Amino acid sequence: MIATRDDCLALDTRDSIAHLRDRFVLPAGINYLDGNSLGLLPKSVAPRLKQAIEHEWAQGLIRSWNDAGWYRAPQRVGAKIAKLIGAGAANVIVTDSTSVDLFKVLAAALRLHPGRSKILALNGDFPTDAYIAGGVARFSGARFVRVDANDLIAAIDDDVAIVSLTHVNYKSGLVHDLRALTQAAQAKGALIVWDLSHSTGIMPLSLEADGADFAVGCGYKYLNGGPGAPAYVFVAERHQEKFDHPLNGWLGHADPFAFAGDFAPAQGMDKLLTGTPPILSLLALDAALDAFDGVDMHTVRAKVESLTQTFVELAEERLLRHGFDLISPRAAKMRGGQVSLAHPEGYAIMQALIARGLIGDYRAPDIVRFGFAPLYTRHIDVFDAVAVIDDVMTARAWDTPQFKARKAVT
Amino acid sequence: MIATRDDCLALDTRDSIAHLRDRFVLPAGINYLDGNSLGLLPKSVAPRLKQAIEHEWAQGLIRSWNDAGWYRAPQRVGAKIAKLIGAGAANVIVTDSTSVDLFKVLAAALRLHPGRSKILALNGDFPTDAYIAGGVARFSGARFVRVDANDLIAAIDDDVAIVSLTHVNYKSGLVHDLRALTQAAQAKGALIVWDLSHSTGIMPLSLEADGADFAVGCGYKYLNGGPGAPAYVFVAERHQEKFDHPLNGWLGHADPFAFAGDFAPAQGMDKLLTGTPPILSLLALDAALDAFDGVDMHTVRAKVESLTQTFVELAEERLLRHGFDLISPRAAKMRGGQVSLAHPEGYAIMQALIARGLIGDYRAPDIVRFGFAPLYTRHIDVFDAVAVIDDVMTARAWDTPQFKARKAVT
Repeated sequence: MIATRDDCLALDTRDSIAHLRDRFVLPAGINYLDGNSLGLLPKSVAPRLKQAIEHEWAQGLIRSWNDAGWYRAPQRVGAKIAKLIGAGAANVIVTDSTSVDLFKVLAAALRLHPGRSKILALNGDFPTDAYIAGGVARFSGARFVRVDANDLIAAIDDDVAIVSLTHVNYKSGLVHDLRALTQAAQAKGALIVWDLSHSTGIMPLSLEADGADFAVGCGYKYLNGGPGAPAYVFVAERHQEKFDHPLNGWLGHADPFAFAGDFAPAQGMDKLLTGTPPILSLLALDAALDAFDGVDMHTVRAKVESLTQTFVELAEERLLRHGFDLISPRAAKMRGGQVSLAHPEGYAIMQALIARGLIGDYRAPDIVRFGFAPLYTRHIDVFDAVAVIDDVMTARAWDTPQFKARKAVT
Repeated sequence: MIATRDDCLALDTRDSIAHLRDRFVLPAGINYLDGNSLGLLPKSVAPRLKQAIEHEWAQGLIRSWNDAGWYRAPQRVGAKIAKLIGAGAANVIVTDSTSVDLFKVLAAALRLHPGRSKILALNGDFPTDAYIAGGVARFSGARFVRVDANDLIAAIDDDVAIVSLTHVNYKSGLVHDLRALTQAAQAKGALIVWDLSHSTGIMPLSLEADGADFAVGCGYKYLNGGPGAPAYVFVAERHQEKFDHPLNGWLGHADPFAFAGDFAPAQGMDKLLTGTPPILSLLALDAALDAFDGVDMHTVRAKVESLTQTFVELAEERLLRHGFDLISPRAAKMRGGQVSLAHPEGYAIMQALIARGLIGDYRAPDIVRFGFAPLYTRHIDVFDAVAVIDDVMTARAWDTPQFKARKAVT
């Protein structure tokens, strides 16, 4: 049982990756537990962007597509992410947004499986994944079916072309068994795509060893690539040759600068490129990923479990009495990098916490969510957070018109 | 007839928008005639990005989606571009790439016209437009048909749902009559989408007065938004309610932060958003567009015609004798912001020019292309460019193995 701030301090003192915190710009006066929405700024980013803007763009100009390596940035950054997800360097590419990349994967998966017509997903996964699947279905004649988690395996019938799952649920933080579900889907002849947005950067992943078909994920959460950083997509090598998606842009062509009239797909992952990528955002992600240099992901995962366990135990002791329900799994191994609490006044509570300098986020209808990004969050931050939440609840500081008024982004 | 550098200097002295050049960072030792590929860095961009990175991201963090206006940036930047293209502020939004935006428009257009099955385009337009149309066709069952310009009107039969045209051809610089072709397509019951990538920022446009249905365009050419800057899309207000595209992401939802399980499209242009936008690239474009503050586009257009006319006249006098063909229109009013010359050794010639500090670009198989971005290009730059080309050709300076060796990006 964690009881005191000194206990937390002792855990931080023994933390073998505590020094990684020095790789980030720390916000002044803030206890930031929202790295699962937007990661902190790595110190490597601002100098890289200054170089990109003032030298590569301003002086190098069009020559920088070759000379500064812009042209191969989607592949180069993809290779960095490949290391974090257990994929071959050439099997991951960075392009577009998670939503657009999922569209490409689902549309292609239906063509890999012409005899099957269903996309199967879970109720309660991040909505954009469902909206994209719905869009693919409406335009392709496929069917999009969602079931509850308990019914998933039974629902994989011989009309399911692809199962689309989120590895870590955005609300509860529940981690699915990637390997077991991949095998279950494939045993029934289906393909599977994993959305790793809430997984990559906080745990070891072994997509290829686990046999995954496809994966997508975003660059701005635990990868710290900056607001709206481009997304990544993985396609197992065995599917690349026949992978056929409809968003064929000039950079996905076998020879973009031939300006041929007809599309001929590039080899390998390059065919997943569409238009010209947003280089400044892409280079920010490129530089940000250096925060993972030399980092052992098993150590990272152990720290995540320790941080979330500390929060859960303190929450049980001090917060549940205020009317919160713990909706994240109690078993540390079942949790991602976040812990979520439900409370009917969740929205106003989060506003009051932010006003006190504790930043988590709110997810409708009633969830306050705290993310414990392992590269820069300390156990004492966890302790201090619980103390602030306890204070705010005890004083009913959330119960004001100011904190109840909704903002555009919540 | 322009004959001397002093004549060019006199034209620059009389140029009422010559001062706009001060809004850009000028590359050292370079005569840059490639603003039609990647515009110069506006001085407003570096401070804006520094603010975005070091304050809004590093310190504001997730709060900046509200507090720094990130959340409405696609609409805000769209409104700036709307002014340049003759559209209502609410009818343009910035999102994704030109290719992805064209995909949305073509897919939606086919649904607006369920009785018609063809996408019609021209041979020789920028290939990505054709690749995207081909992708839409392959996945929707529609047909994609291309014809030569002379056959366009006759080809608009009663099975054509949408005509997809590039306003200014990327190779020749030929400007199509946007109003006349829009009316011709619509008279035959078709919709029309214009790719304005080579138009916006160098001429007045009046999309709404001309009755256009849709338009797309890129942010990194004459808009100077930086490498791979996000693209914009226009949908005529009359089509917005029924506009139904398949790339439905969470930001296109009527209430993104309700995290509803089913997609309900946002009103107006917001439904064209898909995933989270690359904010750093988007804010660079936002700041870059301030270079157009207070600029009269008729004056800009007159300067473009004067610059390109100067180049054409000098080229006729000094360059055609070296074996170049002028493939841009001789009538200034028919040209966009570029002049293109064809030469069998075009690739090596352009490399030799770049080595001499004159940057244009090469387009396969044999075109050297010079862009005259009117906000910062001077008549003396035109004169000096022709002098360098003349020199390089006279000395056969291009005829070396070094200049003939191909690079990844040409």
